[in-house]
Amino acid sequence: MKRNIKLIIRYDGSRYFGWEHQPDRELTIQGKLEQVAARMLGLPEGEVPDVTGAGRTDAGVHARAMVANIHVDTDLTEDEIFDYFNRYLPDDIGVIRVIFASERFHARYNATGKCYMYRLYCGRSKPVFDRKYVTVLDEKPDVEAMRKAAQVLVGTHDFKSFCANARMKKSTVRTVDQINVIEKGDEIRIVFHGNGFLQNMVRIMVGTLLEAGYGRMSAEDVARIMEEGDRKKAGPTAPPQGLCLMSVDY
Amino acid sequence: MKRNIKLIIRYDGSRYFGWEHQPDRELTIQGKLEQVAARMLGLPEGEVPDVTGAGRTDAGVHARAMVANIHVDTDLTEDEIFDYFNRYLPDDIGVIRVIFASERFHARYNATGKCYMYRLYCGRSKPVFDRKYVTVLDEKPDVEAMRKAAQVLVGTHDFKSFCANARMKKSTVRTVDQINVIEKGDEIRIVFHGNGFLQNMVRIMVGTLLEAGYGRMSAEDVARIMEEGDRKKAGPTAPPQGLCLMSVDY
Repeated sequence: MKRNIKLIIRYDGSRYFGWEHQPDRELTIQGKLEQVAARMLGLPEGEVPDVTGAGRTDAGVHARAMVANIHVDTDLTEDEIFDYFNRYLPDDIGVIRVIFASERFHARYNATGKCYMYRLYCGRSKPVFDRKYVTVLDEKPDVEAMRKAAQVLVGTHDFKSFCANARMKKSTVRTVDQINVIEKGDEIRIVFHGNGFLQNMVRIMVGTLLEAGYGRMSAEDVARIMEEGDRKKAGPTAPPQGLCLMSVDY
Repeated sequence: MKRNIKLIIRYDGSRYFGWEHQPDRELTIQGKLEQVAARMLGLPEGEVPDVTGAGRTDAGVHARAMVANIHVDTDLTEDEIFDYFNRYLPDDIGVIRVIFASERFHARYNATGKCYMYRLYCGRSKPVFDRKYVTVLDEKPDVEAMRKAAQVLVGTHDFKSFCANARMKKSTVRTVDQINVIEKGDEIRIVFHGNGFLQNMVRIMVGTLLEAGYGRMSAEDVARIMEEGDRKKAGPTAPPQGLCLMSVDY
């Protein structure tokens, strides 16, 4: 039977070259899903179904609930597909839900919003158990200054200064409707919600908020950087391991 | 200055051959601590100070707060020692406190109690982010049956049936004053508190409680097993990765 399978996927991105399959890289999340799907469907050697993701996470970035879809021809049930994927995927990738979606569902085109969380660890001792999911800061930044700068980023803006792809031809206008800077124990967690994010945009925003937190940039500087549209003016790209895609809205 | 340094240590035991240094094994927690201590103290090549631990954790077992002590001659402050250890220890071992203890303090002899937690994961999807800290069960056991069996283990008993070392010459009598079986989300967590634990004792108790949870042993069977003093009658040794030493009492 023709099915459009919607998958909700969780992964620890530590050992992967990101979401997107790459011809010369063995380890990508999409590549692993396609391998397992091909095997499940009994496709001939070398033939793989297209797994469409809601977005592409960078190398080392994690996801709690990435969404993807695959058009397949199968008589398996949702439960059987769930079990098959979880049995054959490696330990660091899990399928948390399988749903038969309508034929027209498209994980990327239909996504209306995304939520990301970035975890900064500022404790005095080391984050032994969470070490792969946080970015360690040597010194605690000023959280109030970060919140002030974050408010400048919230809204509908041209985020060209916060995009790693300088030759981006499509619009770099996005709406970020929430940035919450939360203190939790030894961590500062920054939660971003928006209608879409450009390449490295969350990580560049985090790098910029940290500049504000360390007093090297004011909220006014951040506003000016946004207007100038120059990536070089914004803060550095924060490391990938602190970032996690939390959810995708439809 | 002569100092007796008390260290509180946290580690992810996944890639280690346990706490105790072993002549033919590179990777042990004690070995790593001794290496760093030797370097900190500027000892000649091949000379290492004795790091005394409160107990020995098995290969693959974790600790949130292991306690150890080292007798050294140093002018460093507690803070300097803390920073030195955390800088030179690998990412999966952290020192969470350094205290100058009285000369007589002995991490093992003075320990009056220990608390361990064992995490069993029973969710339908995979524990992607916690996969190294839980043991995955295919089927959820009966928690009430586990609690009933646990009550048989609580108290002062000869735990010979729950000891991996069949040739143990010293007393196998121990007091376990608490075993709490807690349901938390997709996990069952078993928290043990007692005055001391024999080799593999916590893991054998977990294996036995699981036998009870799956209806293969009753609480009465567990009581009989305790009386018989025969390791072969008790349940299997649960895998190491679900176990964590939570704290040591003095």
